[in-house]
Amino acid sequence: MPLFDLPVTELREYTPAVEEPGDFSAFWADTLSETRAHKLEATFEPVDTGLELVEVYDVTFAGWAGDPVRGWFLVPAGRPGPLPCVVQYQGYGGGRGLPHQWLYWASAGYAHLFMDTRGQGSGWSVGHTPDPAGSAPAHPGFMTRGIEDPHTYYYRRVFADAVRAVEAARSHPLVDPARLAVTGGSQGGGITLAVAGLVPDVAAAMPDVPFLCHFQRAIEITSQDPYPEIARYLTVHRDKVAPVRRTLSYFDGVSFSRRATAPTLFSVGLMDQICPPSTVYAAYNAYAGTDKSIVEYPFNDHEGGGPFHEREQLAWLRARM
Amino acid sequence: MPLFDLPVTELREYTPAVEEPGDFSAFWADTLSETRAHKLEATFEPVDTGLELVEVYDVTFAGWAGDPVRGWFLVPAGRPGPLPCVVQYQGYGGGRGLPHQWLYWASAGYAHLFMDTRGQGSGWSVGHTPDPAGSAPAHPGFMTRGIEDPHTYYYRRVFADAVRAVEAARSHPLVDPARLAVTGGSQGGGITLAVAGLVPDVAAAMPDVPFLCHFQRAIEITSQDPYPEIARYLTVHRDKVAPVRRTLSYFDGVSFSRRATAPTLFSVGLMDQICPPSTVYAAYNAYAGTDKSIVEYPFNDHEGGGPFHEREQLAWLRARM
Amino acid sequence: MPLFDLPVTELREYTPAVEEPGDFSAFWADTLSETRAHKLEATFEPVDTGLELVEVYDVTFAGWAGDPVRGWFLVPAGRPGPLPCVVQYQGYGGGRGLPHQWLYWASAGYAHLFMDTRGQGSGWSVGHTPDPAGSAPAHPGFMTRGIEDPHTYYYRRVFADAVRAVEAARSHPLVDPARLAVTGGSQGGGITLAVAGLVPDVAAAMPDVPFLCHFQRAIEITSQDPYPEIARYLTVHRDKVAPVRRTLSYFDGVSFSRRATAPTLFSVGLMDQICPPSTVYAAYNAYAGTDKSIVEYPFNDHEGGGPFHEREQLAWLRARM
Amino acid sequence: MPLFDLPVTELREYTPAVEEPGDFSAFWADTLSETRAHKLEATFEPVDTGLELVEVYDVTFAGWAGDPVRGWFLVPAGRPGPLPCVVQYQGYGGGRGLPHQWLYWASAGYAHLFMDTRGQGSGWSVGHTPDPAGSAPAHPGFMTRGIEDPHTYYYRRVFADAVRAVEAARSHPLVDPARLAVTGGSQGGGITLAVAGLVPDVAAAMPDVPFLCHFQRAIEITSQDPYPEIARYLTVHRDKVAPVRRTLSYFDGVSFSRRATAPTLFSVGLMDQICPPSTVYAAYNAYAGTDKSIVEYPFNDHEGGGPFHEREQLAWLRARM
Amino acid sequence: MPLFDLPVTELREYTPAVEEPGDFSAFWADTLSETRAHKLEATFEPVDTGLELVEVYDVTFAGWAGDPVRGWFLVPAGRPGPLPCVVQYQGYGGGRGLPHQWLYWASAGYAHLFMDTRGQGSGWSVGHTPDPAGSAPAHPGFMTRGIEDPHTYYYRRVFADAVRAVEAARSHPLVDPARLAVTGGSQGGGITLAVAGLVPDVAAAMPDVPFLCHFQRAIEITSQDPYPEIARYLTVHRDKVAPVRRTLSYFDGVSFSRRATAPTLFSVGLMDQICPPSTVYAAYNAYAGTDKSIVEYPFNDHEGGGPFHEREQLAWLRARM
Amino acid sequence: MPLFDLPVTELREYTPAVEEPGDFSAFWADTLSETRAHKLEATFEPVDTGLELVEVYDVTFAGWAGDPVRGWFLVPAGRPGPLPCVVQYQGYGGGRGLPHQWLYWASAGYAHLFMDTRGQGSGWSVGHTPDPAGSAPAHPGFMTRGIEDPHTYYYRRVFADAVRAVEAARSHPLVDPARLAVTGGSQGGGITLAVAGLVPDVAAAMPDVPFLCHFQRAIEITSQDPYPEIARYLTVHRDKVAPVRRTLSYFDGVSFSRRATAPTLFSVGLMDQICPPSTVYAAYNAYAGTDKSIVEYPFNDHEGGGPFHEREQLAWLRARM
Repeated sequence: MPLFDLPVTELREYTPAVEEPGDFSAFWADTLSETRAHKLEATFEPVDTGLELVEVYDVTFAGWAGDPVRGWFLVPAGRPGPLPCVVQYQGYGGGRGLPHQWLYWASAGYAHLFMDTRGQGSGWSVGHTPDPAGSAPAHPGFMTRGIEDPHTYYYRRVFADAVRAVEAARSHPLVDPARLAVTGGSQGGGITLAVAGLVPDVAAAMPDVPFLCHFQRAIEITSQDPYPEIARYLTVHRDKVAPVRRTLSYFDGVSFSRRATAPTLFSVGLMDQICPPSTVYAAYNAYAGTDKSIVEYPFNDHEGGGPFHEREQLAWLRARM
Repeated sequence: MPLFDLPVTELREYTPAVEEPGDFSAFWADTLSETRAHKLEATFEPVDTGLELVEVYDVTFAGWAGDPVRGWFLVPAGRPGPLPCVVQYQGYGGGRGLPHQWLYWASAGYAHLFMDTRGQGSGWSVGHTPDPAGSAPAHPGFMTRGIEDPHTYYYRRVFADAVRAVEAARSHPLVDPARLAVTGGSQGGGITLAVAGLVPDVAAAMPDVPFLCHFQRAIEITSQDPYPEIARYLTVHRDKVAPVRRTLSYFDGVSFSRRATAPTLFSVGLMDQICPPSTVYAAYNAYAGTDKSIVEYPFNDHEGGGPFHEREQLAWLRARM
Repeated sequence: MPLFDLPVTELREYTPAVEEPGDFSAFWADTLSETRAHKLEATFEPVDTGLELVEVYDVTFAGWAGDPVRGWFLVPAGRPGPLPCVVQYQGYGGGRGLPHQWLYWASAGYAHLFMDTRGQGSGWSVGHTPDPAGSAPAHPGFMTRGIEDPHTYYYRRVFADAVRAVEAARSHPLVDPARLAVTGGSQGGGITLAVAGLVPDVAAAMPDVPFLCHFQRAIEITSQDPYPEIARYLTVHRDKVAPVRRTLSYFDGVSFSRRATAPTLFSVGLMDQICPPSTVYAAYNAYAGTDKSIVEYPFNDHEGGGPFHEREQLAWLRARM
Repeated sequence: MPLFDLPVTELREYTPAVEEPGDFSAFWADTLSETRAHKLEATFEPVDTGLELVEVYDVTFAGWAGDPVRGWFLVPAGRPGPLPCVVQYQGYGGGRGLPHQWLYWASAGYAHLFMDTRGQGSGWSVGHTPDPAGSAPAHPGFMTRGIEDPHTYYYRRVFADAVRAVEAARSHPLVDPARLAVTGGSQGGGITLAVAGLVPDVAAAMPDVPFLCHFQRAIEITSQDPYPEIARYLTVHRDKVAPVRRTLSYFDGVSFSRRATAPTLFSVGLMDQICPPSTVYAAYNAYAGTDKSIVEYPFNDHEGGGPFHEREQLAWLRARM
Repeated sequence: MPLFDLPVTELREYTPAVEEPGDFSAFWADTLSETRAHKLEATFEPVDTGLELVEVYDVTFAGWAGDPVRGWFLVPAGRPGPLPCVVQYQGYGGGRGLPHQWLYWASAGYAHLFMDTRGQGSGWSVGHTPDPAGSAPAHPGFMTRGIEDPHTYYYRRVFADAVRAVEAARSHPLVDPARLAVTGGSQGGGITLAVAGLVPDVAAAMPDVPFLCHFQRAIEITSQDPYPEIARYLTVHRDKVAPVRRTLSYFDGVSFSRRATAPTLFSVGLMDQICPPSTVYAAYNAYAGTDKSIVEYPFNDHEGGGPFHEREQLAWLRARM
Repeated sequence: MPLFDLPVTELREYTPAVEEPGDFSAFWADTLSETRAHKLEATFEPVDTGLELVEVYDVTFAGWAGDPVRGWFLVPAGRPGPLPCVVQYQGYGGGRGLPHQWLYWASAGYAHLFMDTRGQGSGWSVGHTPDPAGSAPAHPGFMTRGIEDPHTYYYRRVFADAVRAVEAARSHPLVDPARLAVTGGSQGGGITLAVAGLVPDVAAAMPDVPFLCHFQRAIEITSQDPYPEIARYLTVHRDKVAPVRRTLSYFDGVSFSRRATAPTLFSVGLMDQICPPSTVYAAYNAYAGTDKSIVEYPFNDHEGGGPFHEREQLAWLRARM
């Protein structure tokens, strides 16, 4: 796929005026306080995976509305704590999968919590967390569920879950709460930004080709899902352009970036058709933290740096925690 | 698209052994009785559409779990009742749209209730009925929501709504309850079969290129959505083949056909890639009623007979009610 | 499909210098006078459609060269005239279909003449009007038939037919000739503009996502048919670029717009890949009438406003006739 | 593209019961006699192509209805006659192109007449012959023009032209009328069979991956144009299946094969998705002549043997004339 | 993708007569003896990956013609030998990638050698092993390089490399040579079968959705690469069908299966469009060993069992070594 | 395909700063001198093609590394020399085919040498010349073979072969060495430019829609092969962007153009998606010769002017030699 977005020199300076509602912070403070009204109740059930170097636990904790959210927790077998910890979020459509798919961070000596995404996990990687909330008419997929109002929007529940995942990880006796990083690719990168903006004391944030950034531009320039789910919804609900724009303004990664201060390592594919580089750079350039860097993959589409970037992440993170 | 299913001579004799659980009837009796535990509370609010020959009402009634289900009700302006009535169900992904899209039956002198499909109506025709029930992880779309158990399956709610739509129509003073037909194309045809099997006294059923029939074959031979949503779900949930098959066995149009006795007019496209003709014929050949006929459209894909078949339906129905 | 044309702020000001031959008006005056040399001979044969609220007539009148052109004429059953009237033209490839497909305007109390397009009506909606004229070598489709010379170009015949359709409608005793509107979507919108430019006294023109406008740009920026039929013709007839450009200059909706003065309501899809918004705005901005408005559908492709826009049209037209 | 038709062992024995109207021969006798009522008036205008070894003439002769049909006539420069001659017909959508595209037969010492196909030649190879006959509504392309009646069907005119092309070639003083072969690929192959069936004394026929054979099967099993033009026409004109089948029965290559006795060399691609091998073998197996052979290209799609088969043709023809 | 191959009941019994040259065994004995004429010279260079639980080595050994072949060797950090070992081969187009992509077997306590595939590794997973041999004209890709003769065929070199990879693994002091399994998916599965047939004393073979089996059927029924590379080669080299068939008969997984006796666990996707299930079952049913089993994934395409099957493999292997 | 590159007015002035290594000329001087270290040994074996006007010879000469390179040599039968000569190079993926495919130049009175491209000729036109050199891991196709270093890059061998083809043609007694032109389309056009830059005394160069020009832009703006082979290679070999750019800088048609002085006739398709017009104009505008012209085909994709341009070429060449 050829270059289709802004030239790279413009990308690096791109700081669009992404609109933000006046009560953005209040909305999220309310959301988290509602969420925390339920007890966290994080449980870690050991799982027999046949692995010898890594111990695996099936995690459950109370997310949004107290709904049980699942995950995997992996630690180096027999290591004493406190361990630095990586909390990871999944890409769109995927679930937590099977635990042996996530051996990287534990093999590197980190505790690792991989969060399932509610309702997802039937598209490519298996998931096990229901989303008990229904919705008004929505386009197939998750992008437009409850999109008529920020309070009912699907990602309100997901971002609340994600904050709770950090709390669940920190609740484990092996984890050093001060050395906790968040990461994820695509949707996982968008969630990473949300958590970095909502949890001031995470030690690092590594959003990879992040999704859910600069919605207004994204839904106008991409033709590859999932952003176009929103555009297609609006082709039918022609009378809902304004409320949809309003809802999305509470969930934009650019706004979370403006509030995030943890050291951060981004990645971007300059030929990324799913998360166009201008939307990634909009978030990166807005990022409030000063220890920040981004790796460009000039010919890559949404696969970004793949294993090359995982290698970058480990070196970068090792230097910080 | 070329012929890809059985030869037409085999189709006409095709009566596969579609498996049916022993408690099929009990399951549906329970479902309806649970549904009817809520009051119907059908309301008809007049709508100003600018039309002069047809009066339009915005309908709301209590469907599954008492959830409010929407629809349009159209009648010839100024006609006294009792009127014969057509209840129509929508195809997959669509909603009730705007009322002026449905002028045919009212222009022909019938009362006409067009039911919205819960949760749908953001894919091509706008809908206004939420589906308040969430679900376990599901593939984008509606086919796999709650599919792990017949009690939570999405179509349990939809079929219950559809039965209630008949009751809502019959509750209107202009409608003659004895002269009520059900119809719909594709998913609407599948719903039509379910209602024909569950409501013994409908006066006619006109399923058009019906969907939701002979699932086991459908999910193995079609490559065009929505049946493949189920197949794709199973590519991820490889351990759920048996429970999914069990759930679907409670929703198969073939089983409803075996119980349906109203006069019926089917249609089938012999090149239908979405609802393959063998799945339609499996339902037609199983249909219990004796006043039955089917129109074949030999070169048509899923569009079937289109306006030609609407013309057939009116002539056929006029002769019966 | 993402935005691909000019930004919306530029669209609204877009007034390209579309070339126009000096004898444009003379060419069309000659064309109409040649056409009118044949008697109109409009006949209206009643059709039994089974409808009760709407009466339907099978119309035939003499179009270009006296060729018989078909259409449907629908009126509210039993209403006395004079009635306001809507004359509608069909989209590319479609024909007049079956009469019960066109119940909207009659249900709203208008007389309604739906014109068949000669030769078309085998692509999606059935047609019944031959085009007796053959042509020089042409690309499959209608866009390049006779394109080597404006006198032989296919749309010369169609536009002449369309003017005659207005005359046929006005010849019916139920129709009030002073209250006649023309409308149509896509090709029907292009024809609407031609008629609005050629028949000074139509009372309103409602071109919907109009086709056949600003050809020079259209054939360079669209990749979706039918405009690219012309481009593909020129890939083969490499030596015919100049005569083709000349021919098209006699048929450009922009030039007709410059001559049209009736009140008008346009629509445009900002993501329309078939009739790009710049080509629609080129015609809209050139429109000579002062009572003009346009509805933008920001996320829609060529489906434009669909039923939402029909609702707009009725309200707009009701206020004018 | 994989194998999709009958196994090769069945193909070689495949002799389907292709229906044939009782007046097939009479229809064609009438057609030719009507055609011959116009004088042939073949003219050969020299063309300056810059070639030195081959002389080129721009041919015009009276085809169906006396319509002027064009072609190229190439002969080895300076050779005295009488020369053996090859008359060639073009594939679907193409025209006669430029003369230097057809140097093979002349370079091999043959006179060569390449016939333009009326109306075609704007799809890939340029054409210069109009088709002055219009038609009833038809699908884009040529397959359904006039298809409602055998007398108006497009290929009636083309086959008549093709017979006249043989007569035009024979009228040239350099050509030995007794040594005249007909050939062509795809549509050109179908025309070749028609001519072989209608002109008893051609010396050889070389249909290459012939089109226009065994229509009934072809329109049911292929998804690649042009056969599906007919199927798509019938998806719209649902009420015209019977008359279309009847019309096609007058034009089936299988019926012409039954009447053709000249020595023949066929070719077939066993993975041909456009002209499926069963339709080619249906014609081949029905061929009446006894000096017949066919070359199978087991992995080729519609390109068949390409230059390999041209080499075969020259060797085969050299042995016969 | 729907079912397209034989019904599952036939697949389970499918034992086609795959042709095998008389000198098959001699050819491979010669090949291995030629290969072994070069010293193995396996080297293991430690790599700093940042991982703590797994030690990684960059492997180089002499493959076919003594060419240096690369791989990764991973072992549990600090574990004493002897360790059971898994040798793994890569899928088509991929290379050995980066070592942290392969943590599964080492995490489970096995030594693990992942072989790079010569020349590959620029399509999706990076590779580092050149293929110094050129070839006659070949289709893009690897399937037809040197295909005109079994001695020059690309897979001769690869299979020889693969046997040497087993020898390299066994040469490492930590590895218990008696407990060595071979595995791989797709192309890696085809190589696994070759090694299982050529190295009598491997302790287990786990071919996953294997490629390179029953070529004659595969190249006729699949439309998805890489098998069709061969079919496309033959569309051009129409005169090479026989030599290509002959060459492939020396490389067919069915023939290797007939010679393989190690315990084996296969997997197959019943909707696999790339390696059709009949070609997999042809190899499985021919497999000579008696401790054999196969896991069917009924709705999966070429992704087969994915992580579910890896879990199966570990349990199965654990029970055997 | 619509216009997607620069506007035509900008194209005509487009002179990008294409980087060129300081030792560009030295690299090629070395390459040619290495090549010429092997004896040319051009042989011309007569071939019996059945043609009478043209004599054909199977050519073999020593190309890069002395590797035997094949071609066809065609001359007007029985003509005495010295003849002007055209040397032609093939497009990407094709081989020399069969000799009767190349009758144009010989029919026009020229000697004609058509060079096979090493390794190619299995994609669409059959080839017979091996490429004995292997390579490091490369993407399927030829674009990335040996791309890590200019000395091993595939096109080094091809351009050396191409220069030798000129020498082979000149070595034939019938050829007048002073009247030799080079030509070719697409890849053949790129090779033409290389030869025009490396062989100062060719009499004319006719690059047609040339490939291999302005790589840096080409790999960023095209999505149609073969340029994207390089981009895809870099999606995997993310660490090789710099060496790949360096290698390509030794092979850029723009640099060869800067050194070419022979009279030249270019062609360009303004909608060419494979060789975008800006890359063609970059070479054309850089061309050093002063007798230069270019023909624009405004609506053509990569097919360019086709037979129309061949006609242009003959007229243009006839005026020069």
